[in-house]
Amino acid sequence: MSFLDHIERCNAHDLAPFRPWFIGATRTGWVHRDFAPVLARRPDLFVSADVGWRLSDHLATPDARTQAVEAFLRDLAREGWFSAWRDERYPVTSDFQQPALMAMERAAVPFFGIRAFGVHLTGYVRRRDGLHIWVPRRSRTKSTYPGMLDNTVAGGQPEKLGLLENVIKECLEEASIPAEIARQAQAVGAITYCYQSGMELKPDVQYVFDLELPDGFECRSNDGEAESFELWPVADVVARVRDTVDFKYNCNLVLIDFFVRHGLIAADHPDYFAIVAGLRRHPFGPGGN
Amino acid sequence: MSFLDHIERCNAHDLAPFRPWFIGATRTGWVHRDFAPVLARRPDLFVSADVGWRLSDHLATPDARTQAVEAFLRDLAREGWFSAWRDERYPVTSDFQQPALMAMERAAVPFFGIRAFGVHLTGYVRRRDGLHIWVPRRSRTKSTYPGMLDNTVAGGQPEKLGLLENVIKECLEEASIPAEIARQAQAVGAITYCYQSGMELKPDVQYVFDLELPDGFECRSNDGEAESFELWPVADVVARVRDTVDFKYNCNLVLIDFFVRHGLIAADHPDYFAIVAGLRRHPFGPGGN
Repeated sequence: MSFLDHIERCNAHDLAPFRPWFIGATRTGWVHRDFAPVLARRPDLFVSADVGWRLSDHLATPDARTQAVEAFLRDLAREGWFSAWRDERYPVTSDFQQPALMAMERAAVPFFGIRAFGVHLTGYVRRRDGLHIWVPRRSRTKSTYPGMLDNTVAGGQPEKLGLLENVIKECLEEASIPAEIARQAQAVGAITYCYQSGMELKPDVQYVFDLELPDGFECRSNDGEAESFELWPVADVVARVRDTVDFKYNCNLVLIDFFVRHGLIAADHPDYFAIVAGLRRHPFGPGGN
Repeated sequence: MSFLDHIERCNAHDLAPFRPWFIGATRTGWVHRDFAPVLARRPDLFVSADVGWRLSDHLATPDARTQAVEAFLRDLAREGWFSAWRDERYPVTSDFQQPALMAMERAAVPFFGIRAFGVHLTGYVRRRDGLHIWVPRRSRTKSTYPGMLDNTVAGGQPEKLGLLENVIKECLEEASIPAEIARQAQAVGAITYCYQSGMELKPDVQYVFDLELPDGFECRSNDGEAESFELWPVADVVARVRDTVDFKYNCNLVLIDFFVRHGLIAADHPDYFAIVAGLRRHPFGPGGN
């Protein structure tokens, strides 16, 4: 592995078996040919046109779209299409800060190739001997990526919650970081990529936060999503990211972004520009916009 | 003005009057229709084809290309085409860390719409009352952007010099920062944009560096390029960038990138994602690659 390999891995996708789908004139996502027959069952909702699929124009408002599609998705969930219905809606938009065209149950989002947003936080400690990073290992019982290494705190971004509010909430749930500390988290950018997993497409944005933690503070799991937390010297994190696939796929990009911002990758590294540019691939979605 | 306005301003360009030019199969840059007649004078060097201009294939090596084109450019310089011949060659490549296809006199580079590289450094001081940034004002006698505010240290990136070596050199020349301090500069990313000025096109990359300076250290001009240096509280720099065009156009992007990385722009800012994505527009050049 190399830093660049992780970037390539998070951007590995083939649009050939996908067709775009639209709400009005806006390309909203991508549907795989193996998922298309499911959409074709409901011509009252999804219309196949030359350019791709189109959400029926009679659904004229965000609320109308959300309600109509959700009823259909609940049918699909009963058929076993989605591994875990979360009862958490994601906004359908390419920019979280802009108004959403509709909202959609989180579990269904990648089947529609819709951009999802998340917050990923690196909790670090500045010690005399250099930076240290709090590294959790995901619970072996988690449905996704069990047992893998993770960012200190990370969570999906539901609608109707501020990004910093979400960080504060996730800090407490995932790492027992109290609000008075979590509130000091600094927004320091975002990473973007487009990851394919079978018929699921994830042209996602992860907002990136740094949180300097007091030396002596101990991260520990509150909700059981992490089985353990360890404080690693940053050089060990750099080596583990560079040389292995032990971290969950997109967590590598968040850490590489941390390494870049903290001056841990030399400008004269042969891959430097490719790494820096690669951390924000497909900023406006795959397929050229 | 707004942060986003600066990003738009640095990316304002219209490719319509430009045609691409190629070395072999590689699109290397863009030539404006008002500069094209100059190329047309030398069909032994530049061939007009369907897709655009092509450097003559008989120039088979980087050295042969560099020598043949430079002889022609010296003729043009005598005609007054370039405001100041610098006797400094830039590499012709879209990624500084990759081998160049040829090299070209710096003054001519934007007329060929070739990517130029530079290093921009923000020198800052961490004080009890917050960050402060060293802000120089460009000399009133400079040929470009006289009297404007600038990044602490900035310089073009010639061929055959490492990026950090260049930073160390420029730190001494421009701000009297000695090598033992300058060497601690941290590479923290890059900004990319595509700026048009008449028939000149600048699809440039600026490598971004942070340098924490000791409180009490004074930046002062060594080579006369700055008429003064002042240490500003970061809030004043934020306001000056956000509200005015007092800084040289691309220096605003370097400072906005500093603000993002140092957590000075809230994640819930309505333009947050557009700003973050906007700092790396056209990473592989304009026109879709």
